[in-house]
Amino acid sequence: MASPNGSLVTQLVREIRGRIAARELAPGTKLASIRAQAAARRVSKTTVVEAYDRLAAEGIIESRRGAGFYVAGHPPPFTLAEAGPRLDREVDPLWVSRQSLEMPEDALKPGCGWLPPSWLPEAALRRALRTVARGSAGALIDYGSPPGLAKLREHLARRLNGFGVPTAPRQILLTDSGTQAVDLLCRFMLEPGDAVLVDDPCYFNFRALLRAHRARVVSVPYTPTGPDIAAFAQVLEKHKPRLYITNCGVHNPTGAYLSPVTAHRVLKLAEQHGVTIIEDDIFADFEAEPSARLAAFDGLERVVQIGSFSKTVSASLRCGYIAAKTDWIEGLTNLKIACTFSSGQLSAELLLAVLQDGSSRRHVETLRARLADAMSQANTRLRGVGLVPWVMPRAGMYLWCELPEGLDAADIARHALEENIVLAPGNVFSPAQTAGRFLRFNVAQCANLRIFEFLQRAVR
Amino acid sequence: MASPNGSLVTQLVREIRGRIAARELAPGTKLASIRAQAAARRVSKTTVVEAYDRLAAEGIIESRRGAGFYVAGHPPPFTLAEAGPRLDREVDPLWVSRQSLEMPEDALKPGCGWLPPSWLPEAALRRALRTVARGSAGALIDYGSPPGLAKLREHLARRLNGFGVPTAPRQILLTDSGTQAVDLLCRFMLEPGDAVLVDDPCYFNFRALLRAHRARVVSVPYTPTGPDIAAFAQVLEKHKPRLYITNCGVHNPTGAYLSPVTAHRVLKLAEQHGVTIIEDDIFADFEAEPSARLAAFDGLERVVQIGSFSKTVSASLRCGYIAAKTDWIEGLTNLKIACTFSSGQLSAELLLAVLQDGSSRRHVETLRARLADAMSQANTRLRGVGLVPWVMPRAGMYLWCELPEGLDAADIARHALEENIVLAPGNVFSPAQTAGRFLRFNVAQCANLRIFEFLQRAVR
Repeated sequence: MASPNGSLVTQLVREIRGRIAARELAPGTKLASIRAQAAARRVSKTTVVEAYDRLAAEGIIESRRGAGFYVAGHPPPFTLAEAGPRLDREVDPLWVSRQSLEMPEDALKPGCGWLPPSWLPEAALRRALRTVARGSAGALIDYGSPPGLAKLREHLARRLNGFGVPTAPRQILLTDSGTQAVDLLCRFMLEPGDAVLVDDPCYFNFRALLRAHRARVVSVPYTPTGPDIAAFAQVLEKHKPRLYITNCGVHNPTGAYLSPVTAHRVLKLAEQHGVTIIEDDIFADFEAEPSARLAAFDGLERVVQIGSFSKTVSASLRCGYIAAKTDWIEGLTNLKIACTFSSGQLSAELLLAVLQDGSSRRHVETLRARLADAMSQANTRLRGVGLVPWVMPRAGMYLWCELPEGLDAADIARHALEENIVLAPGNVFSPAQTAGRFLRFNVAQCANLRIFEFLQRAVR
Repeated sequence: MASPNGSLVTQLVREIRGRIAARELAPGTKLASIRAQAAARRVSKTTVVEAYDRLAAEGIIESRRGAGFYVAGHPPPFTLAEAGPRLDREVDPLWVSRQSLEMPEDALKPGCGWLPPSWLPEAALRRALRTVARGSAGALIDYGSPPGLAKLREHLARRLNGFGVPTAPRQILLTDSGTQAVDLLCRFMLEPGDAVLVDDPCYFNFRALLRAHRARVVSVPYTPTGPDIAAFAQVLEKHKPRLYITNCGVHNPTGAYLSPVTAHRVLKLAEQHGVTIIEDDIFADFEAEPSARLAAFDGLERVVQIGSFSKTVSASLRCGYIAAKTDWIEGLTNLKIACTFSSGQLSAELLLAVLQDGSSRRHVETLRARLADAMSQANTRLRGVGLVPWVMPRAGMYLWCELPEGLDAADIARHALEENIVLAPGNVFSPAQTAGRFLRFNVAQCANLRIFEFLQRAVR
């Protein structure tokens, strides 16, 4: 048979789709046979076959064996009132994620936790897709090995060694995301009811995740050099937490970072009390000079490091990792198979291609420079409307700002939503609910002056 | 008996786990009897029972009928550079997955659960990658909406309607895999210690997953027309399971399928006892004429359907779904954000492109025809070496075969591994360990005659 004519196929697909949508062809109606359709339109039979196949693939028509093609029987109720952003949602640990993810594209999102797409390595991602499109069938189709793509684990091991964390590839397990890495570790180590220590404030999703694990969340105040050590010692004594979960490098949401002295003391106390530490290194690439990493001091004995590239490469391409001592990887791998079966080999291949792309180092350097500029500009503008950063971060994308007395960040965030602006109110980050007067700003999402006009009104 | 004391239970669990990890209690060691343990620690017997049950649910200890509890035979800590396939691994629910995933490419894998790459739509996948490489930056970079790509959910809704399951797009939540879909649902519905009902035999990873959830697994024998209804009624009465997890369409591993009458009775009993049913529809495309789906009878009230395209499109491209009643989707979405943050938008875009590719219907039809041929050929060859299928499936890729009396499938599987052949021994599928004389064969992986030569020797 002749090969189908692409534009004729598209034309036919469009026409039939239109007639079905207009109910000219009702559900259950038989379509003209391929031969009759081809004759009526003076096109080849292959053109009709291709058009019918496409419509069938869309589920709009269906083929019944030996009987031809029919308009699909049960069109779904397309009232599609999608679960849109909601103004009445409780301001809980999931608030920022859901509002940020669900607001329309034209919304302003100074509260969200990611960079604008134009800041990310789009060209390298497109190259990676084309490379993989030409690559081995296995990468496109197979499950891949349980711990994940060996070449990516080798790459990550080298990277961790670069940060002073001695890591062999077999100490690395790939996961579908950084969040999933923390999740697997919690499953591996926690019993329901166990106490887990986090910073106050901390990344809100640690709170949501620990809630899902039925853990008892306890917290210590975060200071500009790391957790408050006296409080840390007290909490370990009193609550006997099994785990401490924190960021390394730039702290979320404060933008502070751990000093080497605090790192030493945290590790000493953790050792005394048999606490395991999960260190989330998701912001690693934001720092030109890496700050103290607990995993580097400790050498992956008591500290497990997790990370992903959602912030600096792509959030669409899901891939995270766990770096831990060797004898934990076997159990974690079994748990990963049981709970998700496999991490995506395709994502791993794509991520590796981007990380190994020639543009990779320049991308990271450009990102740092842009963030520094945006940080300086946002700082000026926020101060201009009376919001003062708690510390001036030396890197990263967050400014943790205090509101003038008498104001409530959750109230302001609710009002902002009505004006299509997503803010991140302090208490979603605060297990002890001590941050009611704070807001976290993502400086990369603060270019639009409407944000500051709103804040000026809100603060008055 | 008194109810167990939670903190004493946890303390005991942790202590025993620690002693096992430290090798004070070696694999195979008998634990103190419940009475002796309770007396020694001055705790109630229920506390000890609860602690032992939890350790058994984790697979760290095992109960031997009438003989007490023993430390499970743990694999030794590995010294290899990579965790390669291992001959000495315990034949447990993870055995088939790990051996299949870890054996070298030239190994024969009649025990594995997937099709050879050459059977999958490689060309359509490559086209999809090139299309996405040219597409919007958002698809490459952004997190995407919490429930997942709207167009894919619309496509899946139409597909489910085609199977008679009335589904709106907002009843669908995308996940990273079918396994993750079951995992999220277990988190959504189970408390540790809850009973969950599965078929005997069932997909082995249901067992591994439920162990991770600390669920109590109970089972009913599967018959050629579905679960044994008398046993089903008894188990519901006795164990009050919260969930029943099963396949729809072709049953894994038996290749049988649910009759409409059994479907009706299962649903009636589930209704009487307030049991929710998770129906895994991963093999949907294998059947030319869909068999009874519980979700179609029930209309997604008491039945939740999950699925993925790992078997018919690609296992590398991770994307699964949950179809459930609307008011569950909100809570499941929150849980998904907490535990993995987001499903991959890129995977969803790629999957949609493949499903809507003009070649999609032909691919599925070709697959069915190839499977039917392979099924017939494997059946002849297996019978030739004395292995008889339990039923002759009308579709799918599995043949569930019985060995002659006196043979042990796990022994044969261990020997096969030495000859670079991965088999699937029956008891990994059997919660009640009643399938020691069965093997599951994937007919699409049975082309090589070396498999049958080995079996002939093994059976003699």
